[in-house]
Amino acid sequence: MKFKVVLNIMGKLLIVLAGFLLTPLIVTWYYHEADYLAFLLPSLLALCVGLGLSVYTKGHDEISNREGFAIVAMIWVLFSAFGGLPYMISSPSLSFTDSFFETMSGFTTTGSSVMQNIQSHTKGILLWRSITQWIGGMGIIVLSLAILPILGIGGMQLFKAEVPGPTSDKLTPKVKDTAKILWEAYTFLTFLQATLLFFAGMNPYDAICHSLTTLSSGGFSPNNASVAHYETSAIHFIISLFMIFAGVNFANHYQFSKRNFHALFNDIELRAYLGVIFGVCAFLCLNLMLTGQYTDLFICFRDVIFTTASMVTTTGFATADFETWPLFSQFLIFCLMFTGGCAGSTGGGVKIVRLIIFLKFAYQQVYQLIHPKAILQLKMNQQVVKTPVILGVMGFLVLYVFSFFTGTLIMSATGLDFTSAVTATASCLGNIGPGLALVGPTDNFSQISDFGKWVLSFLMLLGRLELFTVVILFTPAFWRD
Amino acid sequence: MKFKVVLNIMGKLLIVLAGFLLTPLIVTWYYHEADYLAFLLPSLLALCVGLGLSVYTKGHDEISNREGFAIVAMIWVLFSAFGGLPYMISSPSLSFTDSFFETMSGFTTTGSSVMQNIQSHTKGILLWRSITQWIGGMGIIVLSLAILPILGIGGMQLFKAEVPGPTSDKLTPKVKDTAKILWEAYTFLTFLQATLLFFAGMNPYDAICHSLTTLSSGGFSPNNASVAHYETSAIHFIISLFMIFAGVNFANHYQFSKRNFHALFNDIELRAYLGVIFGVCAFLCLNLMLTGQYTDLFICFRDVIFTTASMVTTTGFATADFETWPLFSQFLIFCLMFTGGCAGSTGGGVKIVRLIIFLKFAYQQVYQLIHPKAILQLKMNQQVVKTPVILGVMGFLVLYVFSFFTGTLIMSATGLDFTSAVTATASCLGNIGPGLALVGPTDNFSQISDFGKWVLSFLMLLGRLELFTVVILFTPAFWRD
Repeated sequence: MKFKVVLNIMGKLLIVLAGFLLTPLIVTWYYHEADYLAFLLPSLLALCVGLGLSVYTKGHDEISNREGFAIVAMIWVLFSAFGGLPYMISSPSLSFTDSFFETMSGFTTTGSSVMQNIQSHTKGILLWRSITQWIGGMGIIVLSLAILPILGIGGMQLFKAEVPGPTSDKLTPKVKDTAKILWEAYTFLTFLQATLLFFAGMNPYDAICHSLTTLSSGGFSPNNASVAHYETSAIHFIISLFMIFAGVNFANHYQFSKRNFHALFNDIELRAYLGVIFGVCAFLCLNLMLTGQYTDLFICFRDVIFTTASMVTTTGFATADFETWPLFSQFLIFCLMFTGGCAGSTGGGVKIVRLIIFLKFAYQQVYQLIHPKAILQLKMNQQVVKTPVILGVMGFLVLYVFSFFTGTLIMSATGLDFTSAVTATASCLGNIGPGLALVGPTDNFSQISDFGKWVLSFLMLLGRLELFTVVILFTPAFWRD
Repeated sequence: MKFKVVLNIMGKLLIVLAGFLLTPLIVTWYYHEADYLAFLLPSLLALCVGLGLSVYTKGHDEISNREGFAIVAMIWVLFSAFGGLPYMISSPSLSFTDSFFETMSGFTTTGSSVMQNIQSHTKGILLWRSITQWIGGMGIIVLSLAILPILGIGGMQLFKAEVPGPTSDKLTPKVKDTAKILWEAYTFLTFLQATLLFFAGMNPYDAICHSLTTLSSGGFSPNNASVAHYETSAIHFIISLFMIFAGVNFANHYQFSKRNFHALFNDIELRAYLGVIFGVCAFLCLNLMLTGQYTDLFICFRDVIFTTASMVTTTGFATADFETWPLFSQFLIFCLMFTGGCAGSTGGGVKIVRLIIFLKFAYQQVYQLIHPKAILQLKMNQQVVKTPVILGVMGFLVLYVFSFFTGTLIMSATGLDFTSAVTATASCLGNIGPGLALVGPTDNFSQISDFGKWVLSFLMLLGRLELFTVVILFTPAFWRD
């Protein structure tokens, strides 16, 4: 492990964070808020540490996969430690654990919160909360479409060729070119949504905050009641639409901008993703109307499409308290916690593309029993998926199941009841936000013990970095030279 | 599909069932019970249908894998339909659905019951209930060690070579020889346990009933309070010990009888199985003593080893109401619902050997990321596990996860709460018996709707036949010639 080059890159990224930490000051100044030190001090600290690190470790070293893994995992932890300082300074009631949890929830675009009475915090703080998610979403798009495929993580190699850019195997040039294209799409969509929300009647501050956390599939809202704060149906529909956009592979957005509709229409993951949303909406509407939970089909549809989009894309915004819905609907929503959006989106969870591979693979295994001598190939979008990729996807499933059980076991040891432990784990591992029972859509994570918050923070990181990137750091083989 | 040969074998097996249906009559006669027709009539019916089928379809046809699958799956359904008739005749309050559920629960050695006030039924009926489990256990040992490996199901090929017998690929001769060896061990252990229980103070009838359902990992008891009915600690420990025996691969029992201790000691699955039991017991004792749930360590250990053995082997006997235990203990027990015993035992669940492969495989995937060019082999007991076997095991995991989610979704649609739906599905799919909440160890399945009972019956069959055997029947490819 070349620690020097790892520290060097971390230093440079800290300097970038120092810049981001200043952005909420515009709001602090505009609204005459007093907590400007909450941003200035952490920014200064990040700048000093960042400069120190990058100067002290100057030099040119190629980075290999090993350093890539270390940087990816550690940057999320480092950013969460520094990014949490504003919360601690602005509201002394928040401990370091709370601040770290809140920021990890931000940078992993999870959206679980330990803040009670959100509207009591300053506008600067709440904007920073939204910005952490936006940065996290930006990071994850590049990670999943440019870095993880090169590192060979859990089947993400599927996307190696989908985004143009130099095909050299060296990390840096490809990442830079790909990142630029993707960030343009990401930024454009954020602006577009903010504009639409403004015209639908939201004030500019709220419109920006919600757009930052919609495109990142994050789900932080500056209102106590989340999106339920607004009664205008147009706002609900705009956010639903952009949540669905955020759950789409950003390579698809690129194809759309290049008017490559043919590739778009033939993408099996995109079609399955829209199919899942449509199917779940239909079941939910049916269940809710038949049980008399809703009497107005329009309102029912509005809440259902919002909830479905929010859960499948792992955003976590809430307009309806789905804990009052029939049990079938609740469990369907629980299932969505595992589904996740498309790979290469800002959504978390298992991802639609992996679910397709699971199903195709299982069918193939059954088919093989009937025709033991047949030589079968698994295809996605007319291309053969190679065995190492399939094995990577299966390894992901095994790790996901084990992480889920181990996580729930530890959370139940902190005293949570069955439903809360199961759904808090599923929600954090899938980077969603709310769960059921104690951590339901109208509650938050403040009642969880400090130890539990650290466990959940770890689960968020684990899920966000596609498991492997984090697990690898715990193997002796990784640290041996 | 050669329907003729399928029907022929089913006919022959029905004649065997007709014989088994007469065995409870000894008890009926001894205790002067009036419901002898409950056994005579179904036996006569099974005999007539069986004879009719086997005479009508006479002829000699080789059976292939395809017929093998059809026979295995259908025989469990057919046996449950005929084997349920005694319940209907003896107690008119039980519907066909109830009787089918109870018998499927018997033949799959699940042990979930819809009977309320069990002791109100005749001794003949309760013996028949135990016998169904014993037959089911016998069937499953042969199935998992002799038939499924040949059919190539979900990694069961691992055991192809472990039990001696002609290695011809034709189904019949190998099955007969293997079956004889295994049944001897099975019958011997049943007798041994009954004798020990008798000397520990159980009456002969109870001793036989409990032995029949211990060795089969079934868990039906002729007492309302299950094994908690007895206060003698020796009885608890004897049953614990034989439950642990029942969860061991019967190939290991064969090795033991041949004094092949070397192979026994080096068997990684056996060691992991005992390790899991020991580890879980330690955690449970610690949790229960520290929280003050128990004050007497001896009683605590007795209940813990019993509950652990009962759950890990998927037997389902109860001595302690673990729903009153701390939440950590409850969730640990929930995890055991998925573990299951060793492959080739009468236990259900995922099976220890598959869990070992999952873990080894996941570690290998992580290791591969660090050394992308390394060529890795997965070994079990010093032998390389071939890729098709690994793929089979992964296919099993995918199907298990999908079955679990689909099952729970459907069960939640019948109106069950979250915990009940989740644990009823896990319990039936894993062939355990009790779950938590509505279907906890002191409750039963009678409150579940008829539709729900059919779904759970299907899940029991699915889990018992290692998923593939049942799923395959639902593919069009299976029925195409």
